Amino acid sequence: MRAVDLIAAKRNGRELQADEISWLVSGFTSGEIPDYQASAWLMSVFFQGMTPSETANLTRAIVASGKRLDLSSIGPFVADKHSTGGVGDKTTLVVAPLVAAAGVPVAKMSGRGLGFSGGTIDKLESISGFRTQLSPDDFVSAVRRVGLVVAAQSADLAPADGKLYALRDVTATIESIPLIASSIMSKKIAAGANAVVLDVKVGRGAFMKTLEEAQALAVAMRDIGRDVGLQVRAVLSGMDQPLGWAVGNALEVAEAVQTLKGEGPADLVEVAFTLGAHLLHMARKVSTVGEGIALMRKTLEAGKGLEKFRQFVQNQGGDPAFIDDPGLLPQAAVQQVLPARKAGYIAAIDAEAIGRASVAIGAGRAVKGAQVDHAVGFVVHKKIGEAVGAGENLASIYAQTEEIAGSIRPTLETAFVISDVPVDPPPSVLEVVA
Amino acid sequence: MRAVDLIAAKRNGRELQADEISWLVSGFTSGEIPDYQASAWLMSVFFQGMTPSETANLTRAIVASGKRLDLSSIGPFVADKHSTGGVGDKTTLVVAPLVAAAGVPVAKMSGRGLGFSGGTIDKLESISGFRTQLSPDDFVSAVRRVGLVVAAQSADLAPADGKLYALRDVTATIESIPLIASSIMSKKIAAGANAVVLDVKVGRGAFMKTLEEAQALAVAMRDIGRDVGLQVRAVLSGMDQPLGWAVGNALEVAEAVQTLKGEGPADLVEVAFTLGAHLLHMARKVSTVGEGIALMRKTLEAGKGLEKFRQFVQNQGGDPAFIDDPGLLPQAAVQQVLPARKAGYIAAIDAEAIGRASVAIGAGRAVKGAQVDHAVGFVVHKKIGEAVGAGENLASIYAQTEEIAGSIRPTLETAFVISDVPVDPPPSVLEVVA
Repeated sequence: MRAVDLIAAKRNGRELQADEISWLVSGFTSGEIPDYQASAWLMSVFFQGMTPSETANLTRAIVASGKRLDLSSIGPFVADKHSTGGVGDKTTLVVAPLVAAAGVPVAKMSGRGLGFSGGTIDKLESISGFRTQLSPDDFVSAVRRVGLVVAAQSADLAPADGKLYALRDVTATIESIPLIASSIMSKKIAAGANAVVLDVKVGRGAFMKTLEEAQALAVAMRDIGRDVGLQVRAVLSGMDQPLGWAVGNALEVAEAVQTLKGEGPADLVEVAFTLGAHLLHMARKVSTVGEGIALMRKTLEAGKGLEKFRQFVQNQGGDPAFIDDPGLLPQAAVQQVLPARKAGYIAAIDAEAIGRASVAIGAGRAVKGAQVDHAVGFVVHKKIGEAVGAGENLASIYAQTEEIAGSIRPTLETAFVISDVPVDPPPSVLEVVA
Repeated sequence: MRAVDLIAAKRNGRELQADEISWLVSGFTSGEIPDYQASAWLMSVFFQGMTPSETANLTRAIVASGKRLDLSSIGPFVADKHSTGGVGDKTTLVVAPLVAAAGVPVAKMSGRGLGFSGGTIDKLESISGFRTQLSPDDFVSAVRRVGLVVAAQSADLAPADGKLYALRDVTATIESIPLIASSIMSKKIAAGANAVVLDVKVGRGAFMKTLEEAQALAVAMRDIGRDVGLQVRAVLSGMDQPLGWAVGNALEVAEAVQTLKGEGPADLVEVAFTLGAHLLHMARKVSTVGEGIALMRKTLEAGKGLEKFRQFVQNQGGDPAFIDDPGLLPQAAVQQVLPARKAGYIAAIDAEAIGRASVAIGAGRAVKGAQVDHAVGFVVHKKIGEAVGAGENLASIYAQTEEIAGSIRPTLETAFVISDVPVDPPPSVLEVVA
């Protein structure tokens, strides 16, 4: 085989065979196929797409580039959850403890935030002492002990994905549904769970801006799951406004705890219950998704999710004292309010603008490897559809200086659109692809 | 500027500006922009194409990567000629001496053969002592002395083209009209002539298989010429069968001499006269192309082309004795004939198959840098439309062993198609783009 022939084949729209894709991925991973051929091939994929069979074979080849965890000793079903990324998306911190508390082990590897989208690992690192870097062995023993583990993506799993992603990032080949789908799914498959729920965010604060794109991605990932024999469901959820109230690492951890205490925002609760219900259903803990929703609610109301969260934090070395006293989480030096300029109804909250503003004040990172400030961020007090009085507080800004807080105010003000007439709140869950 | 943004822009179909293209080419040439970004950009160009303005700006940027010869001291008009490559294409060796003898200096840099297509430099190196590697200064003084120079492409001119071509060759991005056009035209512009005729070959023995592709390439190159203020005309000529009779380096040199003596094959003469007539017209030596044809014929009949060819060979260190005694050119050890299996009319001679066969017996090269055997090749005795008797000789094979000659016979036999009914010979000149 010659790489140039496989580039030409893809360029000309021919479906590549499993052995061809495997040869390309292993050659690229080992360095035998140079980056300049890989990037030309990736750009051909951008234009020509991939068939479901090609996408599944690419995913398999990426999985084969590294270790694959065996979680069969944990139980018949081990759940995993992935979000395509959004603003204020602390869903994992709610779903995972509730599902684990309901009896289905959850083993999740997660990423760090990049651009306007946050990452669960950054949020967890707000917690004093919490360890996110676990070896594969520690990962397995952590979930065995308390039924719940969330750790940073291991470099031993799907290493080809990291190398491909780095190349895609600098060659304008990120925005390809089959490449995104295989990247996500290869990591899920390698991490060893056998029931995976995908939270595909849709809207201006998500990578998928339209329902059509999100559906295409959900279907591509579902198809990969079918092809490799993994239970997968995708929940499409709205990301036109930030999810919940808080945006920023420690602020979101505090909101997750508040939610597990029964005082969470309605949209976060709905998305978390839906995701969890599908995991419980796939793991045969319940016989319908509706029963799964009910079990999620019951588990939350009984305080079992909060208790599981406490065990989880302790299990990974974190000090759980913040659960009872949120003031123990990192605190920003400065807090400012953002009063509404007029009375009316919230018609829009530009999630992407708020995500970018959070990066600007230090809560996220513009480039890989940058530090984040766990304390800073925003809390939105009024969500789409809510009435607001003139001068009433729309949002709180948590920053390290008055100057930084002041500099971000115009961006936040622009993000909020106030209507004179009532506005319906947008749906939190749009559809499910199973 | 960031390369990834320019890749994304091209990918999304945006027209790049002159400064953006210039930045990309100079960054790539200097090594600041890595190959993997250049190849992703090239693949985007493959899919999205380039506007005439982009193509001209790319050409300018490639020219700017190296030296540009100043031939203004030679005269008001200096002619150049380029062929997109074919089988048996010894046209330069006929056109250039005739145009020079008619009073228009010809200064041409040329390439080596690759794949099924031959190269003028390889043909000239059949001549004992002939020097094809000239410094830019030697190139200028050579044309000043005898009004005609043909030398190998200088590495000082358009170096970005060489680097881009090498990358395109291994990333399946050769087959792009704007990239082919800018590659050819950048070398023509840098070589300093101000009247350029392009021989765009069309057919199964050419890179452009269809008239539409050839027209698109001709128009793209014509447009670049307009944009940079260079007189350019493109002659589309047929390449469904080999041009003339001979295929192979020394065999083609001998045929060129024979043609300059007035005994050449009709198709070669017609193509050569047409190309030369356009050069004479662009250089204002004649007032119509028809007059140009007449002047070409008159120059040939007066033996002035042959005399100019002799001066040209001597001027570049070659021994001209072969002109009077072709037996002094390299001779193959073995000669075999290919008798027709049946009587009829030649309906097709697969030029690409014959070109590939010539590579197989050593007359051409499959990979860059390989040696060629100047002595070997084929001479076609019957061309499309000619009648042939059963057992009559279709072609002669010149090889170094009987075994090699025998091994290529089936390929040659398959290349000839004999019809029971008369066949019209195909046109040699299809159209002119000016």
